[in-house]
Amino acid sequence: MTKTLNVNLSYHQYPIHIGENILNEVKYFQPHIKQNQKVLIVTNTTVSQLYADKLAKTLSAITPHIYIAELPDGEEYKSWQYLDIIFTKLLEHDFDRQSIITVLGGGVVGDMAGFAASSFMRGIKFIQVPTTLLSQVDSSVGGKTGINHALGKNMIGAFCQPQAVIADISTLKTLPKRELIAGISEIIKHACIADVNYLAWLEGNIENMLNLDINSLIEAIYVSCKIKADFVQKDEKEQNIRAYLNFGHTFGHAIETAMGYGVWLHGEAVGCGMIMAAHLSQLLGFINQEEQNRINTLIKKSGLPIYSPPIKISEYIKNMSKDKKNHAGNIQFILLNGLGQAHKTTVDLNLVNKVLLENGAVL
Amino acid sequence: MTKTLNVNLSYHQYPIHIGENILNEVKYFQPHIKQNQKVLIVTNTTVSQLYADKLAKTLSAITPHIYIAELPDGEEYKSWQYLDIIFTKLLEHDFDRQSIITVLGGGVVGDMAGFAASSFMRGIKFIQVPTTLLSQVDSSVGGKTGINHALGKNMIGAFCQPQAVIADISTLKTLPKRELIAGISEIIKHACIADVNYLAWLEGNIENMLNLDINSLIEAIYVSCKIKADFVQKDEKEQNIRAYLNFGHTFGHAIETAMGYGVWLHGEAVGCGMIMAAHLSQLLGFINQEEQNRINTLIKKSGLPIYSPPIKISEYIKNMSKDKKNHAGNIQFILLNGLGQAHKTTVDLNLVNKVLLENGAVL
Repeated sequence: MTKTLNVNLSYHQYPIHIGENILNEVKYFQPHIKQNQKVLIVTNTTVSQLYADKLAKTLSAITPHIYIAELPDGEEYKSWQYLDIIFTKLLEHDFDRQSIITVLGGGVVGDMAGFAASSFMRGIKFIQVPTTLLSQVDSSVGGKTGINHALGKNMIGAFCQPQAVIADISTLKTLPKRELIAGISEIIKHACIADVNYLAWLEGNIENMLNLDINSLIEAIYVSCKIKADFVQKDEKEQNIRAYLNFGHTFGHAIETAMGYGVWLHGEAVGCGMIMAAHLSQLLGFINQEEQNRINTLIKKSGLPIYSPPIKISEYIKNMSKDKKNHAGNIQFILLNGLGQAHKTTVDLNLVNKVLLENGAVL
Repeated sequence: MTKTLNVNLSYHQYPIHIGENILNEVKYFQPHIKQNQKVLIVTNTTVSQLYADKLAKTLSAITPHIYIAELPDGEEYKSWQYLDIIFTKLLEHDFDRQSIITVLGGGVVGDMAGFAASSFMRGIKFIQVPTTLLSQVDSSVGGKTGINHALGKNMIGAFCQPQAVIADISTLKTLPKRELIAGISEIIKHACIADVNYLAWLEGNIENMLNLDINSLIEAIYVSCKIKADFVQKDEKEQNIRAYLNFGHTFGHAIETAMGYGVWLHGEAVGCGMIMAAHLSQLLGFINQEEQNRINTLIKKSGLPIYSPPIKISEYIKNMSKDKKNHAGNIQFILLNGLGQAHKTTVDLNLVNKVLLENGAVL
């Protein structure tokens, strides 16, 4: 079974193909790459060993001009210094505006190669081949690309859409279990903010997904991409409802910053962040106790952490004050509005402190 | 006399105000900056001393939150390393997506601050206050922003439009004469590719402009911006006719690269490049001898260089092969098609060599 979702933005359409072993099938790449076009595969050292040759072999049926740029593997390399590896490779091999980048890997290389594509000669095209569950459900849709700055995560980047996303489920077989679980975090988020029926489906299928059941994974990736695409189609530049996709992220980013990037995976921090955001939603009467329990149970069942590390409350508040959603100095939270709906709001800091303390933060 | 040109792109409109001492008038800034909004003035060390305080004083009538980022003055600083000065300043002062950049200076800071605005938090707004003739007629329109890479000029950047351009002619009084002349080069280019009547007007007014006659300058900047805006409106991403604005630039960029950036000013290289492009146009029968003479005379009268430095032909060809307009390995030239019209074409390399040799290049 292969499923295809078409993402329709006002000025750009592209397909997301989700299936098994589709990395090896030239028909998914053919419509987007011209004969003799130069292609740069951007990947990381880990994924390169597993899949770069396979992808290059598939693409070689279209063009002989295939080059590979390998980045080191890890969030700590998501900086200008390593982005420049891509630019240098493109220039050394005389890539022009008609050339194309194919990104092979997870969120970090996806963000970096996407930003490189958006800014090389002021914009060339790119194709995404996400190889982690997180990037298949999250980075494939929305066009957020970029790098980190020493003073903040994802602070430099662009909104930039791919020509196509080819999500090969088979690549999840080589994904460490911990990263698979981290990807499920965003899937749970999609259900919480947009679709209570999807939440129920997840309650029944989470174990299949953890056991790499292909059909459950394809279904979840399809539904999650569809939910995210709906938000993005309505609000591409995140002026408004797209921010709902940040459910759990305000707390989550603060955990990542406090622990140092990479100590907690993004999905793990978001999982724990959702526990706190659901708690806050329940205290404010936006969901009831039973609904909060369903969320907590699902997060726990998926193997995500449910307690915050012992981070000081003052550090949480400081980190959350740097969030891109904020304006005029107030922290903006995405909270639920019943299960399957979200809204953006500011919250009394005393209540935020209470939730932090009750979920593992310290004074 | 103040003139205003409205640039209408499909998804964005903005005004270009052209006048004397308008840097001091809050009414031109008021519609684009909110009360209490954070504003970062990005400028260079030279322009800062002359106009930063004046601009800050004008803006202080709207908001007290005004910060200044000073970049060193020169094309050689148009790199990531110096761009990061802007990002660091923005982050140190907790700028958010609602904050705005105001660029004060010439093309280099304009390109850098524009790219910083386009990529900070994936895009914040910016206002341009160009202080050189070149940036008033050229960088004000078209949204090309970016930085240089060690392996090529303007290789990394974005298309990104300002909220407004406030072109204060008074700033030209402090501009070195050589830079004023370099700005006239792009004005002559606009006449050559788009408007033979404008060419005739320039023939009668070039001396007034060189003597800083305010009304001639306002008129020329207005007409030049209008011509450029017409091209950009029809082809924002330079897929097609926008490339005509590169008349003289294929040769010109090759001169800049060969001499090292900053040795020849961009406008000087383009002036000499137009001599060669007009020569090539005449040899191919696209313009006649008399028309070629009119162009040569006007370029000479404005004080621009008309002979190439003794650069080797092989170096010209190598440099021209790196042009962003090229595809499939062929050098693309913008040539005239009668005075006041242009087209894009490839040219037999023997003819290119002949033109290079007859205009100062060497074997």
